[in-house]
Amino acid sequence: MKVNWLIIGAGYSACVLAERIATQLAQKVLIVERRDHIAGNAYDYYNEHGILVHKYGPHIFHTKSKKVWDYLSQFTEWRHYFHHVLGVIEGKKVPIPFNLNSLYALFPPRYAEKLEELLLEKFGFGVKVPILKLRESANGELEFLANYIYENVFLRYTTKQWELKPEELDRGVTGRVPVYISRDNRYFQDTYQAMPKHGYTEMFRRMLAHPNIKLLLNTDYREIINDIKFNRIICTGPLDNFFDYMHGELPYRSLRFQFDTLDQECYQEVGTVNYPNEYDITRITEQKYLSGQTLPKTTLVMEYPQPFVPGKNDPYYPIPREENRERCELYLKEVEKLNGSVLFAGRLADYKYYDMDQATLRALGLFEKEIAV
Amino acid sequence: MKVNWLIIGAGYSACVLAERIATQLAQKVLIVERRDHIAGNAYDYYNEHGILVHKYGPHIFHTKSKKVWDYLSQFTEWRHYFHHVLGVIEGKKVPIPFNLNSLYALFPPRYAEKLEELLLEKFGFGVKVPILKLRESANGELEFLANYIYENVFLRYTTKQWELKPEELDRGVTGRVPVYISRDNRYFQDTYQAMPKHGYTEMFRRMLAHPNIKLLLNTDYREIINDIKFNRIICTGPLDNFFDYMHGELPYRSLRFQFDTLDQECYQEVGTVNYPNEYDITRITEQKYLSGQTLPKTTLVMEYPQPFVPGKNDPYYPIPREENRERCELYLKEVEKLNGSVLFAGRLADYKYYDMDQATLRALGLFEKEIAV
Repeated sequence: MKVNWLIIGAGYSACVLAERIATQLAQKVLIVERRDHIAGNAYDYYNEHGILVHKYGPHIFHTKSKKVWDYLSQFTEWRHYFHHVLGVIEGKKVPIPFNLNSLYALFPPRYAEKLEELLLEKFGFGVKVPILKLRESANGELEFLANYIYENVFLRYTTKQWELKPEELDRGVTGRVPVYISRDNRYFQDTYQAMPKHGYTEMFRRMLAHPNIKLLLNTDYREIINDIKFNRIICTGPLDNFFDYMHGELPYRSLRFQFDTLDQECYQEVGTVNYPNEYDITRITEQKYLSGQTLPKTTLVMEYPQPFVPGKNDPYYPIPREENRERCELYLKEVEKLNGSVLFAGRLADYKYYDMDQATLRALGLFEKEIAV
Repeated sequence: MKVNWLIIGAGYSACVLAERIATQLAQKVLIVERRDHIAGNAYDYYNEHGILVHKYGPHIFHTKSKKVWDYLSQFTEWRHYFHHVLGVIEGKKVPIPFNLNSLYALFPPRYAEKLEELLLEKFGFGVKVPILKLRESANGELEFLANYIYENVFLRYTTKQWELKPEELDRGVTGRVPVYISRDNRYFQDTYQAMPKHGYTEMFRRMLAHPNIKLLLNTDYREIINDIKFNRIICTGPLDNFFDYMHGELPYRSLRFQFDTLDQECYQEVGTVNYPNEYDITRITEQKYLSGQTLPKTTLVMEYPQPFVPGKNDPYYPIPREENRERCELYLKEVEKLNGSVLFAGRLADYKYYDMDQATLRALGLFEKEIAV
């Protein structure tokens, strides 16, 4: 088989690049995907109860980038959706990220007022203060608050999620968990927040519906790479795997999902409820909030964080530790040696925890800077 | 790319053959499919309302063959289902095939009794009499009945379906339309009648979930056939197309489907209602009867028969006329000349109107007789 481009993987990065190459350069692309479906971890499907579910955990689209929004809007209509998350603290469900409403939900009114005043005074309204920063900089009552949030919202959730203590992780990740001095209960504040109206899989299907794009499923690229004629190759699969683990494994965190369908219209108050303290799960997502469907049953997905074992489960999150970044650097030097004959992009190939919009932006950028030139 | 077998198409015949070759012979298969999905015309999916719909018209599984049933049962659980069809005659909905209950639904009781008596006397209980045979052999009151059914059930439906007069079609087809001297209102009388519990697409997905099976979608086999190394080839696509239409086109009838979702639980009394006389549609199928789902909305599919135009729409039914069979014979001679280097199987490759069980049986038979030897 002869193509201009061989693309390994069929997730965000791969599909965006295939679409750009096929439509903008009129060149032929072969996508090779190990799984039997497109859309990567954003893959969704209607289950037997007719509910649109996310096979690999909830994916909520949000971006500040008009460029990403306009690009993806070519392939999907959107359902406007603000995602809300509540965290179970002392048996109460309070807004996450922890905000002024969370204060009032947990503490006696006059005490909450006092803490609110102190927060406003020290940081100002509308500011997101990373939990560890709050903890360091605070004193007196705010020190209590910082420790309270650290203990009840942050510590055990992080330990469940990563099986590491917070101090064993990079500040970048822990910085993701803020205290939001605001009454905005939404999980995201981006300009564009929405779900693809007919699902992610359908959006990617339309992206790939072009005669220049061939799609080979159920296939590890190693099985066919010697039998395909191609000019260039893009790898969106795991970086360490591409180089045969020559510098050792790049560690990932994995997840196990448990789906459960209940014979009732609704289960919880919002799309996602976090369990920072109790049980082994990190969170429960009720799929109907994401899809906006009106149906008599409801499907939940529970997430159990797991160690990643190659060949056994799927890699989800690069583990953000200095030693892993150093190992990644070794691989990036191997990438350099290839002199651009192989391009790498995506969460697995860049070993970076991209959100969906970041993956899209990264693929569009790669196309503009290194492909369409 | 190197494989043992190249299979053109991803419908019933192709999937069954791929599965057999992969699991029984441990040989490698590449399936090449023009569309972006597997399962051929049996393809189903959950639409945005959560209803399992059949993209290419209703497919109801039924077979007398325990062999076929046992084979497919490896890849799906089943939902037991008896399909019922009503035909709109003089504004009333009566059982189709026309049976003794239809008689009583349309005629005054004493007249219906008389006709019933005559039918039982002449043909016996439980017998299916082809409508044209009834018309020829009958006299007196039965002649009236034969003409009535011919006019009201058969003639205009057949004309809509084929755009041909009944006498322009082979007797084989017209024999498909019987008068059933029975009170059994079911459309089929086979031992096994059921729907795949999670749909046909899921059944085929499981069939193909084997490391020996590679699946190339969005691809016409001509685009890649010179670049693939394979030992043998199986064509399940159109016979005339494979031979570049050297003996002219084999004509097919096509269909246009109109889907409609209503904000009500239920639309009609049974799975399918035929409109033999009024409108341009032949029938309306309510998908929920087939899937057994309990949902607040309901999706209907209306069928408009169409001429088949290659490249414009899809081929559905080989048109059963002597001249087409003769043309098919010319192609079968070309098949012979290939001395078994290319195998042909399926509705399109055999140019035969197979039901799903017949296609399965044909593929299993081909595997046993010409492949696993």
